[in-house]
Amino acid sequence: MIEIRKAVEDDKPAVWRIIKAVIAGGDTYVYPPDSPEGEMTEYWFAPEKYTYVAIDEGRIVGTFWLKANQPGLGAHVANAAYMVSPDAGGKGIGRQMAEYSLKEARRLGFTAMQFNFVVKSNTVAVKLWQRVGFEIIGEIPDAFDHARHGLTNAYIMYRKL
Amino acid sequence: MIEIRKAVEDDKPAVWRIIKAVIAGGDTYVYPPDSPEGEMTEYWFAPEKYTYVAIDEGRIVGTFWLKANQPGLGAHVANAAYMVSPDAGGKGIGRQMAEYSLKEARRLGFTAMQFNFVVKSNTVAVKLWQRVGFEIIGEIPDAFDHARHGLTNAYIMYRKL
Repeated sequence: MIEIRKAVEDDKPAVWRIIKAVIAGGDTYVYPPDSPEGEMTEYWFAPEKYTYVAIDEGRIVGTFWLKANQPGLGAHVANAAYMVSPDAGGKGIGRQMAEYSLKEARRLGFTAMQFNFVVKSNTVAVKLWQRVGFEIIGEIPDAFDHARHGLTNAYIMYRKL
Repeated sequence: MIEIRKAVEDDKPAVWRIIKAVIAGGDTYVYPPDSPEGEMTEYWFAPEKYTYVAIDEGRIVGTFWLKANQPGLGAHVANAAYMVSPDAGGKGIGRQMAEYSLKEARRLGFTAMQFNFVVKSNTVAVKLWQRVGFEIIGEIPDAFDHARHGLTNAYIMYRKL
């Protein structure tokens, strides 16, 4: 089992290494592969987010954040984003972070969770979310400029908590 | 015909009066009715937004903004929000701002426009967007805590430009 805990300032370099490796492909996240470190860690650790890291044998191998998807009268629905270090794939880290984040979102008072942008061709992510109870509630045509496939669709996914 | 132009700093008090009147109902936007002026004008005039005002007989009667709905590899899809002063309803101001904003978004290089959160019970807005070519591409259950109806759904709407 991996350990999951709240991220702290000192985790930023390790989190950046994961972000950098994940966005390098230009195939899952909208952040351009050449996004600067400071901009990305500021975004990932923004004050309105609850940011977490997943640790396997003393090494940070994954990270995710939770936040309200809308302010005010829409703030009961959570939003989240997850990244697993590419060299730690296939160990169920994404699945464990997913389940932890659902429990944590419930604990924080959210009553549902919504993903605004799951790249359709990212079948590993789509299947993972479906396995933990998410449904596709919308599909945005040509939403993502995929590094290899060009314009591809993105799903909006949702589940109650 | 109304005049539509880019908003300037001096327009903030008039824009705030519209925002305040629109959010007072708690029935169309997520911003709580008691949102502070500074917070809302800062949001409406944020640096990443193109903000506009609509003027009828010398008076600001509507306002809207355009921005990228996602960064980087999703930045070709625009997002927008619109408000019409409740005392200027029924004059086609929303429709004129809608058409202007579509042209303007195209001019700015966007290839599509997406609304992430159109309250389903706000039928005036839903019909307006359908009339100018938007389709409902998703529906979020219980997304909005409506002042009178409680939890209501929100639509995600989209059109190519």
